[in-house]
Amino acid sequence: MYPVKSYAAASAASDLEPYEFSRRDFKPHDVLIDIHFCGICHSDIHQVRNEWGHSMYPMVPGHEIVGLVAALGKQVKAYKIGDKVGVGCLVDSCRECPECKEGYEQFCVHPVFTYNSYEKDGKTLAQGGYSTRIVVDENFVLRLPAALPMDATAPLLCAGITTYSPLRHWKTGPGKKVGIMGLGGLGHMAVKIAKAMGADVAVISRSRNKEADAKRLGADHYYATAEPGTFEKLAKTFDLIICTVSVDLDWNQYLQLLKRDGTMVLLGVPPKASPVSAGSLIFGRHSLVGSLIGGIKETQEMLDFCGKHGIVSEIELIPIQMAQESYERVIKGDVKFRFVIDMKSLK
Amino acid sequence: MYPVKSYAAASAASDLEPYEFSRRDFKPHDVLIDIHFCGICHSDIHQVRNEWGHSMYPMVPGHEIVGLVAALGKQVKAYKIGDKVGVGCLVDSCRECPECKEGYEQFCVHPVFTYNSYEKDGKTLAQGGYSTRIVVDENFVLRLPAALPMDATAPLLCAGITTYSPLRHWKTGPGKKVGIMGLGGLGHMAVKIAKAMGADVAVISRSRNKEADAKRLGADHYYATAEPGTFEKLAKTFDLIICTVSVDLDWNQYLQLLKRDGTMVLLGVPPKASPVSAGSLIFGRHSLVGSLIGGIKETQEMLDFCGKHGIVSEIELIPIQMAQESYERVIKGDVKFRFVIDMKSLK
Repeated sequence: MYPVKSYAAASAASDLEPYEFSRRDFKPHDVLIDIHFCGICHSDIHQVRNEWGHSMYPMVPGHEIVGLVAALGKQVKAYKIGDKVGVGCLVDSCRECPECKEGYEQFCVHPVFTYNSYEKDGKTLAQGGYSTRIVVDENFVLRLPAALPMDATAPLLCAGITTYSPLRHWKTGPGKKVGIMGLGGLGHMAVKIAKAMGADVAVISRSRNKEADAKRLGADHYYATAEPGTFEKLAKTFDLIICTVSVDLDWNQYLQLLKRDGTMVLLGVPPKASPVSAGSLIFGRHSLVGSLIGGIKETQEMLDFCGKHGIVSEIELIPIQMAQESYERVIKGDVKFRFVIDMKSLK
Repeated sequence: MYPVKSYAAASAASDLEPYEFSRRDFKPHDVLIDIHFCGICHSDIHQVRNEWGHSMYPMVPGHEIVGLVAALGKQVKAYKIGDKVGVGCLVDSCRECPECKEGYEQFCVHPVFTYNSYEKDGKTLAQGGYSTRIVVDENFVLRLPAALPMDATAPLLCAGITTYSPLRHWKTGPGKKVGIMGLGGLGHMAVKIAKAMGADVAVISRSRNKEADAKRLGADHYYATAEPGTFEKLAKTFDLIICTVSVDLDWNQYLQLLKRDGTMVLLGVPPKASPVSAGSLIFGRHSLVGSLIGGIKETQEMLDFCGKHGIVSEIELIPIQMAQESYERVIKGDVKFRFVIDMKSLK
C-alpha cells in the first residue's frame, strides 16, 4: 500500500482540501507513477459538484496525469523505472467485451474511470490525479513523447484525445475544411491538431475576443457569430465541425454550415437536450454525431502524433493550493487554455 | 404544346378537381410520356394543403410516375417510342453545380421538382403526375425494369429511392442489423430492399398490429415499443435504424438501440424540432443523419436493383376520382401500403 497525499472534495458542497489515503496493493501488472503534473478539466468541476448526478465522495479528481514510473509489478514488461508516462480518463475496463477487444475501452460496459468510479474489485473508490502517486495497470498507462515538456503534455490525456479522436475518425486532412466551435481547453487543442493534420481550420466563436489567440494557435480563419450575416456567409462551408461548447446553442444554425455529407461532432453535454429539426439533417445529408475521449491504443497514437508535430497544450501552471480558485476561472473561461497543477506543491 | 387532363388543387383548402392545361413546347432533349400510373405520396398531401408553407396553385401533385414514351425531341438518344419509363421527384436541376456534377441533383441549389416548383424558365409552374401526359428532359427520365408490373413500380420513384439511398449509403448488407421504424409507404419498401441487400431486418412499430404484414414482407423480427421493456431489450442492437415516421417521437430512445458507431437516418420531417441529448450521441459514437430521396443515377441503380430482385410496392389501385378520399386514408395509415392512381380513369 502506497500512502498518498492529495486534494479531495468531501461532498458536492465542499472545497478541495488536503486528503491522505493509500493506493491499492500492487498487482503483477501494476505500475506506480510518481505524479509530476495533472491538468484541470472542466469535467473535474462537474463531478466534484455532482452536476452529473452520480458523484461519490471523498473524490480526488484529475485525469490528465503525467509523471515518472517509480515502481513496477513483477510482470510489467512495457515500462521501466523512470519512464515518462501518462494516465487519462480510464484506468481499467472489462477487457473482454467487443468494445474492449476492438480498442474502444471508453465504451466498455464496465469501465474503470480514473476517479468517481469503482476499481475492478467493485468496492474501492478509484482516486484521480490531484495526488502525489497513482497505481495503474500497465495496459492503461501511456508513454509520453520524449521531446515534449511534461507539464504542457498533461492536458493531452483528456483534451488532446477528446479532439484527436473525432478529427481522425472523420478523416481530417489536406483539402478538408474544419470548423472548431469554442476556443477553450478542448477547442485550442482541436485547432492545433486539425492544423497538424493538414486541414484548413476555422474557429467559430461568439465575439472577436479570441481572434488573436486563434490565429496564433494556427487557425486559418476566425468567425464571430454575433456579427450579423455570419451564418449566411458560412452556409455549406465545412466538411467537419467540432463543437467543444457545452452551453445551450441552436445546433440547427451550425448544421447549415456543413457541406453535403458534412459532420458536426458534439464533445460536450449541454444541460438540456437541444431541439434538432430533421430538415437540418435531411437537406444536405448532414450527420450530427458524438464522440467520447478515445481508446487506449488511440490515445497512444495521439501522443505519438503530438510528439511528432511538437503539439502541447497552452497552460497556466499552478500550485495545488490554487486548484479551488482555478475552478471559478475555468467556469468563466478565464484561462489560456488549461490549468495544470504542479505536484511539487503537494510534496 | 400537349393538352393534358389532370386533377389539381386550386388552393390549400380545395379538393382535387379536374383541371386541363398544356405541357410545355418540346425541347430537343424532351420526352413525352403517356402516364399509366402515379403513386400517392404523403408529401402530395402536405403540399396540396400547404403544410410546408410554400405551395403554389393550381397544383397537380404526383411524383411517382410511370408510363410509356409517346414522343421524342429531336436529340433524344436514350429512349425510343414505347419504352417503359418513370419520373420521380425531380424533373431538372442546374446541372452545373458540384452537387449536380457528382450525381446529387436532389441537393442542387436550383432543382426543378416535379410539381410545386418553377420550371427552368423560372415562371412556368411544373405540374405533376396526376395527369395523362408529362414532358420531361431525357436526363431526368428513368428506365423501368421490364419484368416488373408498372402499377406497383410507380412508388419506387419516391418511396423506393428514399429508402434505397440511405440503406445503400450506410452500407446495408449481410451481417448488418437494420431496424425500420414505421411500416407505411416508406417502411414497407425499406423492409423489402434491406432484406434484398442481405441484412437482418427488424420492424419497430408501436403496437403488434402490423406484425403479420412485416413478416410477410420479409422482416426477420418485429418489436412493439408499446410493450414494456422493449427499449431496454433492444439496447445496442442495430447498425442502422431507418426512421420513416414523421410524427413527434423521442429520438433519444431510439438512438440507444444503436450499436457503437450505429446510424439513425431520418427520412421525414416531423412538425416540430425534436430534443436531442448530446449524451445519446456521445455514448456509443452514434450518428443522427438525414437523407433526401436520391440522385438520378442512383434512382436508376435502385430501379435496376429492384428489377433484379423482383421488388415492387404493395399497392391499392384506385381511379383518380378516389384520390381525394384516399388522402384521408393515407393520413390515418389505412392503406397497404401505397395508393396508385390508374390513369385510365382520366382518359
